[in-house]
Amino acid sequence: MTAQAAYRNLTDHFARIGALRAVSGILGWDAAVMMPGGSAEARAEQQAALDVAIHEKVTDPRVRDWLAAATAETPEAEANLAEIRREVAHATAVPADLVDAYARAANESEMVWRTARPANDFAALLPKLRVLLGLVRQMGQAKAEALGTSVYDALLDQFEPGGRSADIDVLFADLARFLPDLTEQVLTAQAKRPAPLPLVGPFPIPAQKTLGERLMTALGFDFDRGRLDVSHHPFCGGAPGDVRITTRYSEDSFFPAMMGVLHETGHALYEIGLPRQHRGQPIGLARGMSLHESQSLLVEMQVSRSLPFLTFAAPLIREAFGAEGPAWSAENLHAHAMQVERGLIRVNADEVTYPAHVILRYRLERALIDGSLDLADLPGAWNAGMKELVGITPPDDKDGCLQDIHWPAGLFGYFPTYTMGAMTAAQLYAAAQADVPTIPDEIAQGNFAPLLGWLREKVHGLGSTRSAKDILIAATGAPLSVAPFRRHLERRYLDA
Amino acid sequence: MTAQAAYRNLTDHFARIGALRAVSGILGWDAAVMMPGGSAEARAEQQAALDVAIHEKVTDPRVRDWLAAATAETPEAEANLAEIRREVAHATAVPADLVDAYARAANESEMVWRTARPANDFAALLPKLRVLLGLVRQMGQAKAEALGTSVYDALLDQFEPGGRSADIDVLFADLARFLPDLTEQVLTAQAKRPAPLPLVGPFPIPAQKTLGERLMTALGFDFDRGRLDVSHHPFCGGAPGDVRITTRYSEDSFFPAMMGVLHETGHALYEIGLPRQHRGQPIGLARGMSLHESQSLLVEMQVSRSLPFLTFAAPLIREAFGAEGPAWSAENLHAHAMQVERGLIRVNADEVTYPAHVILRYRLERALIDGSLDLADLPGAWNAGMKELVGITPPDDKDGCLQDIHWPAGLFGYFPTYTMGAMTAAQLYAAAQADVPTIPDEIAQGNFAPLLGWLREKVHGLGSTRSAKDILIAATGAPLSVAPFRRHLERRYLDA
Repeated sequence: MTAQAAYRNLTDHFARIGALRAVSGILGWDAAVMMPGGSAEARAEQQAALDVAIHEKVTDPRVRDWLAAATAETPEAEANLAEIRREVAHATAVPADLVDAYARAANESEMVWRTARPANDFAALLPKLRVLLGLVRQMGQAKAEALGTSVYDALLDQFEPGGRSADIDVLFADLARFLPDLTEQVLTAQAKRPAPLPLVGPFPIPAQKTLGERLMTALGFDFDRGRLDVSHHPFCGGAPGDVRITTRYSEDSFFPAMMGVLHETGHALYEIGLPRQHRGQPIGLARGMSLHESQSLLVEMQVSRSLPFLTFAAPLIREAFGAEGPAWSAENLHAHAMQVERGLIRVNADEVTYPAHVILRYRLERALIDGSLDLADLPGAWNAGMKELVGITPPDDKDGCLQDIHWPAGLFGYFPTYTMGAMTAAQLYAAAQADVPTIPDEIAQGNFAPLLGWLREKVHGLGSTRSAKDILIAATGAPLSVAPFRRHLERRYLDA
Repeated sequence: MTAQAAYRNLTDHFARIGALRAVSGILGWDAAVMMPGGSAEARAEQQAALDVAIHEKVTDPRVRDWLAAATAETPEAEANLAEIRREVAHATAVPADLVDAYARAANESEMVWRTARPANDFAALLPKLRVLLGLVRQMGQAKAEALGTSVYDALLDQFEPGGRSADIDVLFADLARFLPDLTEQVLTAQAKRPAPLPLVGPFPIPAQKTLGERLMTALGFDFDRGRLDVSHHPFCGGAPGDVRITTRYSEDSFFPAMMGVLHETGHALYEIGLPRQHRGQPIGLARGMSLHESQSLLVEMQVSRSLPFLTFAAPLIREAFGAEGPAWSAENLHAHAMQVERGLIRVNADEVTYPAHVILRYRLERALIDGSLDLADLPGAWNAGMKELVGITPPDDKDGCLQDIHWPAGLFGYFPTYTMGAMTAAQLYAAAQADVPTIPDEIAQGNFAPLLGWLREKVHGLGSTRSAKDILIAATGAPLSVAPFRRHLERRYLDA
């Protein structure tokens, strides 16, 4: 077998794996958007069989032989080989029956969570979550040995390749130093400003959907290769070349659904902009969750809650709901978009208080993984952490430790990527405006091409050909730091 | 390895295969119902990767070892082993690269057909179809050697396990002997009756959908484990435990969509009634396409176009559309349901003229497979056959040889199962009424339980534990014959 043939065998093999992962993406979308409730058990069998089939392919003994024989003739091939090695290390660390048990336990736990959360019944979830956490720790230990990292970092690496908790500790400590004071200052400044004029509905859902579609189209979403639907938890899913986002609507308010659409559109634009020539290969995939979240937050937080964007969007919003008057000015919409409040719920949090929610989860999941916190003590630890970090105590578990799907779905090591994404978004958008100063003015005119072009060149089009760190340094001149995020918050919330 | 362990390994392995096939069913549903048009290319890669993964599992060398070592301890296990052997014979006959090439060619050909048909452009389809037919013949030859059958029977066996063209030849010759005269007599008798009173619309699509859902529910469809949606070509798909049917609507007429829903509901009830304890195993699957089509045609043709059913349905139909007057009586609806006409389009054909469409396709596909008909000559052969068998000549290929998706999708050996299904339906429904004479009266009251109970016991609940022939003999006392179908047609159309 020549080195070229070995590399070709690898890329053929991983193209099939990529296609099966795309199938998994469609299946996941279907489960959240289309599947009838009674079909969940059958679906769990399907998803598990698909996961095992993918795992079998990644751990196929021939892959090791091909990796030993293959040489890279281009930098892209070199990066692809490195990604394949990383994937194989993750997968071979974990035996197939553990993968299978994890998939089933995650599905069962998630299903119980779906009823336990509205019932405020942590005790109902606890046994399922305990089984799942045990399997997660087993997986993490196996991966830690294979990767030469800590157990937590091995879990983190699944979502954030190369991410290390030692770096996160430093960044989150920086955040924790200034955010409490900043939050106080922001709330004080906000209290001195007049309250925004109310936006009075109802807002018919078909009109909200049409508005969302118009904004998505303006941003560059292609409806011939994607969809917008409804699900309980908004997400960006589907498959490469078939990117599907969801939102959820309330007739009482259009802002959450609109911002949800814009957030998921940020994710979608990243997926759509991935390098077409590498589709199906590991280097053709998005580069980790913090960069992914940076794209959604760049669109939602940096762009869509800015005055230039709302200058563009205000007439579309007025048209969608047949609204008029001063409440519907760009300035008043902007005032709504930047309301800050200490709240119980992470997904409803504004960008100022959001990091506190994430730091809480990061601390707790590290303790759950290293065994210093028992799951039975999670509600108490949660409430104490909320009091310390956000400044309020949840009245119940429903809006406390039961609020997120992540842990019941088996996702540990995921939460920190949200706030790393927020910081990355601030750093990228500052660099984009430094490179192309007309971006905000163009956005006010509804022209997103300069921004999208910059993102495609600096981020989207690179896929996983480089590390997240190298992508960020090349795009912004510096590794991830708290400073641009802090400047952004101070400028938006204190200089206003 | 003990014989029991070998059998257990087989059932575990085929449970995973069954789950991956279920994934394929969901993916197919998505492609027809939800997928954006521009994602077809990406989807083709996904579907091909999944097909290959399934094929690899069926042809896994361990399966042969397990089959050699396994013994069956129950009749069900014996049947399951026989089905596994049949599956393995089909799959091992065909190398993976041919399976892959076939899947891609079928997808490409189907995609071209989607535009070639409305464009009436057989020449555009011809090169794709020629490639595909070549691959189908290669597959058929390989399977014929493995199964010890003719090439055509090997293809037929994919859809109709154990089906043989020698039997079909006899049955279709019987049909061809009396159907032309019967059609003439039916048309003459119909011409002597007054035309049915017109059913004047428009018929709003939401009202049609609600009507369809009410009828489905009455028949026993479970919306917690299934869906009703819209697709260009109605079908019953999805997965075990998640059965999804589609229809298509026109505001001008509700009859086609309603009958489409009822037809697919017949398919769905079969899937829903399959033996739960064998789900995932080969014996847990429906027993071939003629029995499947018999269930849809039993519900649509035998039941839903009968006066008792329309006695039950008429008030629901009137309520759905706010209609009243003599046109909306059960008798007038029944007169609409039994209109006969020589037409160009198979899917629009009534049950009297439908077999002629199928006999034409059966003759042509046998000639295409054995090479006595070149694809380039298909349009001419089609038109000549239509003239001979149906009595009219298509004005163009759009409504001629381009009308069906089957051949462009790579399905050869499928068409005869439609008419075998129609004959099976007549034979089963006659036996059901002989066993439970109150069935029609109960249906007139909206009570489908006696019929469904009989079908579950005699057909649905047996899955593939016996051959289609044995199921039919046990249910009706006789192998498949033309007589019950002929009696049904004469009674409905000539005694009326």
